[in-house]
Amino acid sequence: MNILKIIVTVFLYTSLFPSCNRNKTEVDPLPSWNEGKNKTDIIDYVNTVTNAKSIHYISIPNRIATFDNDGTLWSEQPLYFQLFFAFDRIKEMAPQHPEWKKIQPYKAILENNLAEFLKEGEEGILKIILKSHTGNRTDAFEKSVKKWLATAKHPTKNVAYTALVYQPMLELISYLQQHHFKTYIVSGGGTEFMRPWVETVYGIPKEQVIGSTVKTTYEYNKGKPIIKRKADIEFVNDKKGKPEAIHKFIGRKPVFAVGNSDGDLEMLRWTASNAKKPFMLYIHHTDETREWAYDRASHIGKFDLGLDEALEKGWKIVDMKDDWKKIYPNE
Amino acid sequence: MNILKIIVTVFLYTSLFPSCNRNKTEVDPLPSWNEGKNKTDIIDYVNTVTNAKSIHYISIPNRIATFDNDGTLWSEQPLYFQLFFAFDRIKEMAPQHPEWKKIQPYKAILENNLAEFLKEGEEGILKIILKSHTGNRTDAFEKSVKKWLATAKHPTKNVAYTALVYQPMLELISYLQQHHFKTYIVSGGGTEFMRPWVETVYGIPKEQVIGSTVKTTYEYNKGKPIIKRKADIEFVNDKKGKPEAIHKFIGRKPVFAVGNSDGDLEMLRWTASNAKKPFMLYIHHTDETREWAYDRASHIGKFDLGLDEALEKGWKIVDMKDDWKKIYPNE
Repeated sequence: MNILKIIVTVFLYTSLFPSCNRNKTEVDPLPSWNEGKNKTDIIDYVNTVTNAKSIHYISIPNRIATFDNDGTLWSEQPLYFQLFFAFDRIKEMAPQHPEWKKIQPYKAILENNLAEFLKEGEEGILKIILKSHTGNRTDAFEKSVKKWLATAKHPTKNVAYTALVYQPMLELISYLQQHHFKTYIVSGGGTEFMRPWVETVYGIPKEQVIGSTVKTTYEYNKGKPIIKRKADIEFVNDKKGKPEAIHKFIGRKPVFAVGNSDGDLEMLRWTASNAKKPFMLYIHHTDETREWAYDRASHIGKFDLGLDEALEKGWKIVDMKDDWKKIYPNE
Repeated sequence: MNILKIIVTVFLYTSLFPSCNRNKTEVDPLPSWNEGKNKTDIIDYVNTVTNAKSIHYISIPNRIATFDNDGTLWSEQPLYFQLFFAFDRIKEMAPQHPEWKKIQPYKAILENNLAEFLKEGEEGILKIILKSHTGNRTDAFEKSVKKWLATAKHPTKNVAYTALVYQPMLELISYLQQHHFKTYIVSGGGTEFMRPWVETVYGIPKEQVIGSTVKTTYEYNKGKPIIKRKADIEFVNDKKGKPEAIHKFIGRKPVFAVGNSDGDLEMLRWTASNAKKPFMLYIHHTDETREWAYDRASHIGKFDLGLDEALEKGWKIVDMKDDWKKIYPNE
């Protein structure tokens, strides 16, 4: 039997007996999701828009899926994890800055006084983010993030921060990728804080991370080019910034978007305006035992206007307590 | 014969008789390139870095290739094609601006007086780019670019602008893509001027276009979100801007970079500093019969410092006249 005949035979077999392939679809793509409307809706959506015979078929290049990060792909309590990184960097830098013992917000950080730190508000946060995240080369910054993630522990859960990613979301990302969706992170977090680890943790390539940025400057010294991070915010990727950044970086409207807070509302609205069939999903933090429970009144991940609009428009809302069999991978 | 046996047989056939696969590699991947050192160097490079047994092997996620556009992927004489688009838009808008008949640089454009227009220098260019490219919605701008490209003709070649892309570069892009390089355009041209057509013309996805940008603003009116283009330059993607933008958009250093002017020098230097085996290529415009011949003294695509450095460092330089069998696809 020559090669051509064999190939034709394989083709005929697999066409005549589609059951040979059925196992593939019978495997549950979302095993950590409880059976229910949300799980069914996600699977129905993916089956519909990837079915070439459906009027809702979406071509592969247009299958853009965008995910918020903090509170959507991993936890964000009691504070955004990037802030704990900033605190640890400040403590590391403190010996070179004896004056910090007396100045806020540094004093509060050095004394592990979170309540005192939070009194300094947005301005305090900005100050320590800039101080701890800039002034160095991009490659040095990347190393410091990797080193921190390898050793730091969450203050109450006492596990590595990357152990606090949501298993059901890892499954959703992978399921969409298997159906040729290009998955992006669109987060208020720092682009360069996320890129060092998203590839191994989420299976999302570095270049598919859109976050907040500081200004950078390229220098060419003695034949060696470097890029330095300046103490100057360039872009805050939150609220209206999200659709603007999606347009700038991707140039296509998403068809699938997931968020968990009011900061994601404009991204979901932008997605909802897609003429192709879109899917908008909000993650609602309802599980105070396994994770945290918060929404309308939370200082982190406030979910108020977004919750109203999701209910009004019929966007999907994950109830973490009810919908997720498992929250974290090692649970 | 059951499916498993057939698959095993196919596997054995193709393993035992590798000649069955050989045709694939025997097909010339760069048919419009004359035989010679540049063609051999490109093919040798790709074979080396994609060979898992080579010490120079580069994993797929790190195979980032960046291409300048004007003068690298398509022609750029007598002026960047985007400027002709701007001129035509200005003429289209002129009836609503009777005052333009008397004010430079509009007057020169309306009178088709290129020499007079060029006297207005960079400032004149900026003025007409902003006037012709902004103030509208992103989707309306995209339509205007598509409409223009479908009808406009190059002033001297008298063909569509997209007919003036370089056939050898189309082959190079496709060859790299076949070897799992992610190909990006990194151009001083406008991101939103390029995105509407790069997919069909170059086979490069929209989201792999990094160019100059104007500021945008997201608005949510009566349930309909839009993004507007403001008359305010956000970023000029040239010279030092290129490595900065590559870092911001991709977050990885390229291993393969192609340019044609001093504006690409920093991108090539950045690429040359990659610890992985990099490939730097300059396109030298040497064919005044089939294309244009210009370098050190040209007002468009000046190639002076870049030429010196390429010669000094041993970067590859394409001599368009000698290296390219064919310049344009329909030649």
